[in-house]
Amino acid sequence: MLHITDIKGLRCNGIKEGKNGLGVVVCSGNVAGVFTQNRFKSPSIVVTERNIKGGWIEGMIVNSGNANAFTGKQGMRNAKRMCELLANELKTDVEKIAVASTGVIGIQLDMNWIESKFVEVYKDLGNSKDHAMAFAKSIMTTDRLPKIAGCEVDECKIAGVCKGAGMIHPNMATMLAFIFTNADFRSEELREMLKMAVKYSFNTISVDGDTSTNDMVLLVATGEFRVGKDKFLEGLKSVCLNLAKQIVRDGEGATKVLKVEITNARDEDQAFKGARVVVSSNLVKTAIFGCDPNWGRIVASLGYAGIEVNEELDLTLRGYRNGELIAEVKLVEDGVGLGNEGTAREVMESVDEVQFIIDLKLGSGKGYAYGCDLSYEYVRINSEYTS
Amino acid sequence: MLHITDIKGLRCNGIKEGKNGLGVVVCSGNVAGVFTQNRFKSPSIVVTERNIKGGWIEGMIVNSGNANAFTGKQGMRNAKRMCELLANELKTDVEKIAVASTGVIGIQLDMNWIESKFVEVYKDLGNSKDHAMAFAKSIMTTDRLPKIAGCEVDECKIAGVCKGAGMIHPNMATMLAFIFTNADFRSEELREMLKMAVKYSFNTISVDGDTSTNDMVLLVATGEFRVGKDKFLEGLKSVCLNLAKQIVRDGEGATKVLKVEITNARDEDQAFKGARVVVSSNLVKTAIFGCDPNWGRIVASLGYAGIEVNEELDLTLRGYRNGELIAEVKLVEDGVGLGNEGTAREVMESVDEVQFIIDLKLGSGKGYAYGCDLSYEYVRINSEYTS
Repeated sequence: MLHITDIKGLRCNGIKEGKNGLGVVVCSGNVAGVFTQNRFKSPSIVVTERNIKGGWIEGMIVNSGNANAFTGKQGMRNAKRMCELLANELKTDVEKIAVASTGVIGIQLDMNWIESKFVEVYKDLGNSKDHAMAFAKSIMTTDRLPKIAGCEVDECKIAGVCKGAGMIHPNMATMLAFIFTNADFRSEELREMLKMAVKYSFNTISVDGDTSTNDMVLLVATGEFRVGKDKFLEGLKSVCLNLAKQIVRDGEGATKVLKVEITNARDEDQAFKGARVVVSSNLVKTAIFGCDPNWGRIVASLGYAGIEVNEELDLTLRGYRNGELIAEVKLVEDGVGLGNEGTAREVMESVDEVQFIIDLKLGSGKGYAYGCDLSYEYVRINSEYTS
Repeated sequence: MLHITDIKGLRCNGIKEGKNGLGVVVCSGNVAGVFTQNRFKSPSIVVTERNIKGGWIEGMIVNSGNANAFTGKQGMRNAKRMCELLANELKTDVEKIAVASTGVIGIQLDMNWIESKFVEVYKDLGNSKDHAMAFAKSIMTTDRLPKIAGCEVDECKIAGVCKGAGMIHPNMATMLAFIFTNADFRSEELREMLKMAVKYSFNTISVDGDTSTNDMVLLVATGEFRVGKDKFLEGLKSVCLNLAKQIVRDGEGATKVLKVEITNARDEDQAFKGARVVVSSNLVKTAIFGCDPNWGRIVASLGYAGIEVNEELDLTLRGYRNGELIAEVKLVEDGVGLGNEGTAREVMESVDEVQFIIDLKLGSGKGYAYGCDLSYEYVRINSEYTS
């Protein structure tokens, strides 16, 4: 398993105390980012979006437990102060630091806690696997597991870490994801590739249909090795998709991953759009939780997805356990239900990932989306997670 | 309480056996309808949409427990056959009958059951209050209560009945609603007024964000009395809103009604659009279930609603019990949280309707939306309601 600390020159650390966490990564490189499209952006988003315009950062500071969102001028001062803490230690400009926050909205940060924990975290920065895990854990909120992924492309390494379990319906970016590479690309090149990779990964997932105020994906490249753009983009896509899938697998209260794949839609955009609407449907999500192959709800949600549809569609269920295909059951052929619900239910009861493949027979567009089921536990977590 | 049987000349009846129900209304009059925008329309929708083009109907036949949706040519034949059953008895054209269905998607109707129950229902048609209630109960699915409403405008009466508890996120219309009046209007006038009334009532509610394949609202006018259009429209709006609120109050698993009102938005459309996005947010809905005045989730959902927003907003909570205002608590002023969450939580714990009033301070647009909380019970109902 590749860790972010396998990128030469990168040092990091983090701590988590109850609901609050603080993490720091020190890494010089060209940078690109994508950010939430929510119109109420966290001051952390506003500051980082501005700071990375220079195309270069020296490090980042991240807190969890408090989103520093809807916190007005005080929130803006606090976000800048967080950057300043790290900039002072690194003897660099405050504009070369990125800041990110995740947690409850509408409450001012406890800056005393942050300032004192920063000292602790900073003095123990390092590049071991334990340091990478400490950072990954420090940014978690309702996440059950830290989320890391990596791959190698020639001599180049790409390693990422992310967090997210609720308020997940990314639009241009998702909760927090930080990806590091020792490849050599200019920040404009990084941005172009990051946007593409995010489109096919973070932007295809949904846990609860709620787009956060704090979504952010940053990509930092230290410039150690050169590598072909196409090869690198493939690697970057695979790391992003790997991280995105870890988010839905850890979706709040989730017991099963749901993938919807649409083939032969009018075009690719329609296929992706339709798939995302289906995985976001509360009725589809509760059916998955109940191991109910209720394909009527799937076609109903496809019908309001705003894409061209065809009633003569085919619909097939596939069940996976630990990534392995267990069984495939065709439920609908040429628009006619085949009465295979009994078999399908048995498959659903024995797997951890359910896939529905919908063949629209209209064109050659192909797309997919990942989500998870909606369980009692989702309701418990979100009715008890107090403001 | 006004019943549909208070409209002169109207006779009805219905029965419910387990999950299945059949209801019949005989009533001659000018007719208008609005129908689901889901692209997979039930054959019942297709047939009724076509039949009411003539502007006149003699009666309607409705089944519950099976949506007759995604049932192809056989479903179309069955929908027509249902119209034929009633047309034969009334010795009228099959094109003067409306048909509606609600229930599970993707399964063919049990026409033997429908034909035999039709005989029973038809022979006991009548115009008593009990007959009205029998019809209202026959169209229920997961509804806990029958839903009726009415008002008088001069000598004119407007009386309606509807059903709906899940798959509720109407777009142009909602689940099944049938409204009758003895007023005298041409079908084009009825249609124009119905569209307006639906916009401010059924189209402002959401239970789970899922738009049904079977939504239908029909308005039948027997032409007994003349009344002014403006007066009638006010009455029609109030009946539609009354019915729509009964749907959210009976939303699957709902313990509380949620109303969001936006004032001083850029324009009316933005105010209605924003309010509906907020009441549809799973995170807002679970917070209401947990009596958590988590206004951070409210502003976050407003931020992705696609409308113009202003961080300097005011946000106030109002709690109602049995329609009576219990308390009002201001949570945010000029974009700053006031720290009144403790008081707000106490209010939420003691009421059955929670309202959030958001003052955007941008223009003069005003709009609202109704929804309900998301509870364990919603998950139970929808993970166990088998296909």
